[in-house]
Amino acid sequence: MLNIAVAQSGGPTSAINATLAGVIRACHESQEIRHIYGYLNGIEGVIHLQAISLSPIAESEDSLLALTQTPSAYLGSCRYKLPDFEKDDTVYRKIIENLKALNIDAFLYIGGNDSMDTVEKLHRYCEKINCPIRMIGIPKTIDNDLPGTDHTPGFGSAAKYVATSIMEIIRDSYTYSVNSVAIVEVMGRNAGWLTAASALGRVNGEIAPHLIYLPEAEFSVQKFLSDTREAMYRHKAVVIAISEGVTLDDSIGEYQSNKTDAFSHRYLSGVGKAMEHFVASEIGCKVRSIELNVPQRCAAHLASKTDLMESIAIGRAAVEKACNGQSGIMLSFIRVSNNPYEIKIEETNVAKAANQEKKVPRSWINETGNDVLKPMIDYLYPLIQGEWPVQMKNGLPMHLVRKI
Amino acid sequence: MLNIAVAQSGGPTSAINATLAGVIRACHESQEIRHIYGYLNGIEGVIHLQAISLSPIAESEDSLLALTQTPSAYLGSCRYKLPDFEKDDTVYRKIIENLKALNIDAFLYIGGNDSMDTVEKLHRYCEKINCPIRMIGIPKTIDNDLPGTDHTPGFGSAAKYVATSIMEIIRDSYTYSVNSVAIVEVMGRNAGWLTAASALGRVNGEIAPHLIYLPEAEFSVQKFLSDTREAMYRHKAVVIAISEGVTLDDSIGEYQSNKTDAFSHRYLSGVGKAMEHFVASEIGCKVRSIELNVPQRCAAHLASKTDLMESIAIGRAAVEKACNGQSGIMLSFIRVSNNPYEIKIEETNVAKAANQEKKVPRSWINETGNDVLKPMIDYLYPLIQGEWPVQMKNGLPMHLVRKI
Repeated sequence: MLNIAVAQSGGPTSAINATLAGVIRACHESQEIRHIYGYLNGIEGVIHLQAISLSPIAESEDSLLALTQTPSAYLGSCRYKLPDFEKDDTVYRKIIENLKALNIDAFLYIGGNDSMDTVEKLHRYCEKINCPIRMIGIPKTIDNDLPGTDHTPGFGSAAKYVATSIMEIIRDSYTYSVNSVAIVEVMGRNAGWLTAASALGRVNGEIAPHLIYLPEAEFSVQKFLSDTREAMYRHKAVVIAISEGVTLDDSIGEYQSNKTDAFSHRYLSGVGKAMEHFVASEIGCKVRSIELNVPQRCAAHLASKTDLMESIAIGRAAVEKACNGQSGIMLSFIRVSNNPYEIKIEETNVAKAANQEKKVPRSWINETGNDVLKPMIDYLYPLIQGEWPVQMKNGLPMHLVRKI
Repeated sequence: MLNIAVAQSGGPTSAINATLAGVIRACHESQEIRHIYGYLNGIEGVIHLQAISLSPIAESEDSLLALTQTPSAYLGSCRYKLPDFEKDDTVYRKIIENLKALNIDAFLYIGGNDSMDTVEKLHRYCEKINCPIRMIGIPKTIDNDLPGTDHTPGFGSAAKYVATSIMEIIRDSYTYSVNSVAIVEVMGRNAGWLTAASALGRVNGEIAPHLIYLPEAEFSVQKFLSDTREAMYRHKAVVIAISEGVTLDDSIGEYQSNKTDAFSHRYLSGVGKAMEHFVASEIGCKVRSIELNVPQRCAAHLASKTDLMESIAIGRAAVEKACNGQSGIMLSFIRVSNNPYEIKIEETNVAKAANQEKKVPRSWINETGNDVLKPMIDYLYPLIQGEWPVQMKNGLPMHLVRKI
């Protein structure tokens, strides 16, 4: 009989709790597993021995359903990077000691690039000291920038939210008869996957966004300006999706500092806001920036059913791998086919995902770097399909909240 | 046999097209009505004689359903204020001429305070010149600031979106173990109804927002700061809802200009962003501002069923009043009872709503001006109940879009 522990790390998503629910269900159903614990606030909860039993959730179907549709990390999260254990293994000894305190046989860590680094280091440390605790990573991130998996749990729901919100913003932008520009800033510091999702409405004949800028393509504010001017000739209301990760070149820096002596503050308020001021001054039209902000990673009321189903399944698969005695792996999705959409869940060496970023292939962006191409749409399309039947109470979504 | 014309005006909502759908359905079903036309971009479309027949929509159940769930104004909108006709009636003559060009017997105008001003003026002008065209106003606005009606179509859906998004942001805020402040800026330039909706999660035991600031209560940035400090003693993550219409006093002006020489630019980027910078500098904690922005008025994917049903019904009622020969009225909701929730639709003199604002009673806000009280919750609660069964296509909501 095994004891399993699970923790969550990195930025929240709408699906990270669905994965947790999958882990809990699988543990509860398994004849091989005795206890299932959750450490609080990621690896910090292991270091400080803050853990709770997840059996009460396992035994309540209502709680499991509510957990599945609750955004953010039920167990709390952290951003903690383990040091190199060859130089200092103090914290590693603490971690192993606190896992042994609960007789943990396998530690499942749901997280992104940094969390996979943690899993990889803990696995290597266990190998070194001959500790049998299995270390298993389960991917998640709205950024979809994790190598070693076709896509990440949580991304599909974020993409569905972005695609839907952009459609609604397009309706809003076309309301008035005056010419206007709407600049929508989308999350994704280094990878443009989520910004690309703004194009998904086109499968339904959506008329915008007219311009899409990802961090993977060359970006220049002057090109942005000329693209916008050109789009304004053709469209009454120009709608632009831009990644927060686009690098603004010197021209906007000079431009802004000349105007206000406060470039650094403006810049910090975001790419969208900076470009709003730039377009307003250079073109002089009505312009608005919309930062989609944290709802992108927590708008679980609009979760993709495909995403939540896969997120549950990958959690279940991790428990199975733990029971099989595997360690040093990350669970991953392999896309078998696009049409009909089919994936399988396999394991990959966690080292493949640790600290690395999967960016959008340049060939999926048009030559001038202001739009995405068909392979991107084909890739994204299946991930947003279906709506999770969110349970509501008093007109609002039901959430499962841990007592703090 | 009558000819009816309809137009939409003012800021978009998630429900203004539901009202349009109600008007179209009622006209289509009525034996007394021959044609139903839509003027484009509000009263501007009447002035410039830009109109379309709405019969193609009336004859397609699919179109009517798609229209009902499409946010923003299908016919386009405007912000146009009619002059005083006693001084200059040129544009009035043009309007009447262009209504007569289509043999219009009744003009229905869906809009907010300014639009009711238009209806009121046109009605008085028609009385003066003995023109029999009936002028009827149908309310809409996410701000809920229209007098003469218990609430406005469109508000319930916006309130549901705000309440849901705040809940999701609360989950997000509680993810990390570090102390933090999240400041959520909500629309409503002069009235705090929508910001008050941030409290609705409490009916489900929601743990935040801890502080709520409406324009109707006295506001001081120093009080905001001490409230925030106090809340931080009690809560790991403080979540604050603040209306965009709150007036920032001099202290933040001085504070900001001392720090950056760019107060005016910061101020323009919104109350939330200004308070974010203020809290970050004064308290030095992790702080984030989230401007809910235009999705508040167009996130039809999360529309309140109560709101859309009422919006359809008020559109139907307007057609009935037109057939009865009434003019110079605005349709309005009368709340019969809160529990069970029951409303009836009546008419009121449109002059009552024109150019006036209905603000939140000060007695519905707590004494210190940083929270709302039970009468506010009781008032808001029924308006967000139920979810509209949004029809989806390819994982995204179906919209009806006018060819431009």
